[in-house]
Amino acid sequence: MNLTHSLQISKTAQSRLPEVDFDNLAFGEIFTDHMFVCTFRDGKWQSPEILPYQDIPMSPAASALHYGQAVFEGMKAYKDDAGSVWLFRPELNFNRINTSAKRLSIPEFPKEYFFEGLHNLLQLDSNWIQPGIGNSLYVRPFVFASQACVQAAPSTEYKFIIICSPVKAYYSGEVNVLIEKKFSRAAAGGVGYAKAAGNYAAQFYPTALANQKGFQQIIWTDASSHQFLEEAGTMNIFFRINNTLITAPTGDTILNGITRKSVIEWAKAAGIKVEERAVAIDEIITAQHNGSLKEIFGSGTAVVISPVNSFAYEDERYQLPKIKNAYALQIKKAITEIQYNQAEDPFGWRHKVS
Amino acid sequence: MNLTHSLQISKTAQSRLPEVDFDNLAFGEIFTDHMFVCTFRDGKWQSPEILPYQDIPMSPAASALHYGQAVFEGMKAYKDDAGSVWLFRPELNFNRINTSAKRLSIPEFPKEYFFEGLHNLLQLDSNWIQPGIGNSLYVRPFVFASQACVQAAPSTEYKFIIICSPVKAYYSGEVNVLIEKKFSRAAAGGVGYAKAAGNYAAQFYPTALANQKGFQQIIWTDASSHQFLEEAGTMNIFFRINNTLITAPTGDTILNGITRKSVIEWAKAAGIKVEERAVAIDEIITAQHNGSLKEIFGSGTAVVISPVNSFAYEDERYQLPKIKNAYALQIKKAITEIQYNQAEDPFGWRHKVS
Repeated sequence: MNLTHSLQISKTAQSRLPEVDFDNLAFGEIFTDHMFVCTFRDGKWQSPEILPYQDIPMSPAASALHYGQAVFEGMKAYKDDAGSVWLFRPELNFNRINTSAKRLSIPEFPKEYFFEGLHNLLQLDSNWIQPGIGNSLYVRPFVFASQACVQAAPSTEYKFIIICSPVKAYYSGEVNVLIEKKFSRAAAGGVGYAKAAGNYAAQFYPTALANQKGFQQIIWTDASSHQFLEEAGTMNIFFRINNTLITAPTGDTILNGITRKSVIEWAKAAGIKVEERAVAIDEIITAQHNGSLKEIFGSGTAVVISPVNSFAYEDERYQLPKIKNAYALQIKKAITEIQYNQAEDPFGWRHKVS
Repeated sequence: MNLTHSLQISKTAQSRLPEVDFDNLAFGEIFTDHMFVCTFRDGKWQSPEILPYQDIPMSPAASALHYGQAVFEGMKAYKDDAGSVWLFRPELNFNRINTSAKRLSIPEFPKEYFFEGLHNLLQLDSNWIQPGIGNSLYVRPFVFASQACVQAAPSTEYKFIIICSPVKAYYSGEVNVLIEKKFSRAAAGGVGYAKAAGNYAAQFYPTALANQKGFQQIIWTDASSHQFLEEAGTMNIFFRINNTLITAPTGDTILNGITRKSVIEWAKAAGIKVEERAVAIDEIITAQHNGSLKEIFGSGTAVVISPVNSFAYEDERYQLPKIKNAYALQIKKAITEIQYNQAEDPFGWRHKVS
């Protein structure tokens, strides 16, 4: 990481931190004082910069606005009681943004620029990170096509940007999910495995319909048969049948979630049987009826672990049991303590920023 | 359309028109002097404006850059030999952008604003439209989510913009297409029927792979079985078997193309049998082998009608015959003459701007 000469840092004249009400943070609406920006032009990534957080120049013909050529990542930075700042498995985010970029014909971003930018940005804005479990800084790296051209073709120019937003927990209250049979999230052979911008907007309308019926989230099923459970759009989904955890395998329709991967690794190390395989709706309904379905929970960077209270399928609503020592809570506690440096890190997941 | 009081027009101080080389136009890279802009905020579309073409203020957290909540339309304005300016069935573009918007949870745009903005913009920039078949002004209405918020939820703010770009023909040279079996464009239950931004970027990588093999375009097949031919991403596709024109039915995976619709209506009026039904790859291969496959052509606003020279499927390449009185050329001539006011318009498709 010997690139300090090329990273230009311009600090803000006046921090906005004193204006922030940390007790009343809407998710993702407040941003820190600085941002990391790097431009792709003339066939290469130019010198990266850290700038005061500000509007960016944008042509109305910028390709991303027309053709959705954009990908992103979601990460969190945590502060421990001693004031040190940590990330959780950031190399997986780095790898994934380039996996996403490749599928969207976006040039891959250099690893050195990514980590140097991330470290410097977080160090500069570390006062925005509150200590204590539940507090974190949501870190949003993203790339978008910036060439001013309305030809439906890959852009010749891109912006790679990292912005940061102080956050509390993503969901409050119980989570009731709808198993979706009509609408689809991703086609086999499509971009569902990528954190492609368009994957998210495509879920808004079906999700709004589900919200109107009292569900916080949709569990998407495969677009071909609608018989198999895939993911929840902002979360991967785990099912506990008796003492086995089951989750759909990642492929071209399901996001390869970093929290998902960590849940699997932690559970296996804890002696819990984990199966990554197709999960049929019928299997879950049968397990619910015979009492072997103990838990459903979602996993994701924003939510960490989100226990599901009830699920609905074809106008029938199914209440999950209230159980002691739920895997969801055990795993959430374990992963959270690793993230906040309150426990040993046998997996080497923590990444020290400062 | 009694809204003149609310449309604010600010003219450019200096036209860029004299700098434009109309003999060497790259598609979609040059834009006219003005643009139409309308902002959605506080639950409603605010007063529309026409402004000098310029960069737009953009937060790096603007939702469209992260979640692809954006839709667009493609239209063309034509100038006849008397200097009058015409659009082709613009009410269908208006209807479709709102159909797309609804699927993407974007608020619908008022019809009066759309047509008043379009008319005033085209009148103001009418000198940018060159007369003569092949010359046109590509008109790009689009809407994108502009709220500065990285929560994966519908934006509370949007920009509706129209920009215009003088163009020549979209493709030059012959078109050879690849029937795609691995990658998919759209899931049943997804957003394939909408002109959603993300649908386009998702095609770039598979298209680049096809380009490397010498194909200009992909014909997408259904994502479930890859047995049925759908569309080509920027074109709908027609197959002529003997004297019958066949094209896939529109549904939730195929764009309801305005040129497609016009081809069907014109062909039926000309006594050509047209079938809108599922088209199996097997049927086309069989027809190619027995000599009954006479033509394949694409239809779209950008391309108008684009005859296909050859198609490939599973490493086999099939050359279309060279035939006299091809439907593609007859239909292209007929539609083009209506568009440029060189022929009667029995269907009422032309829309006079000035």
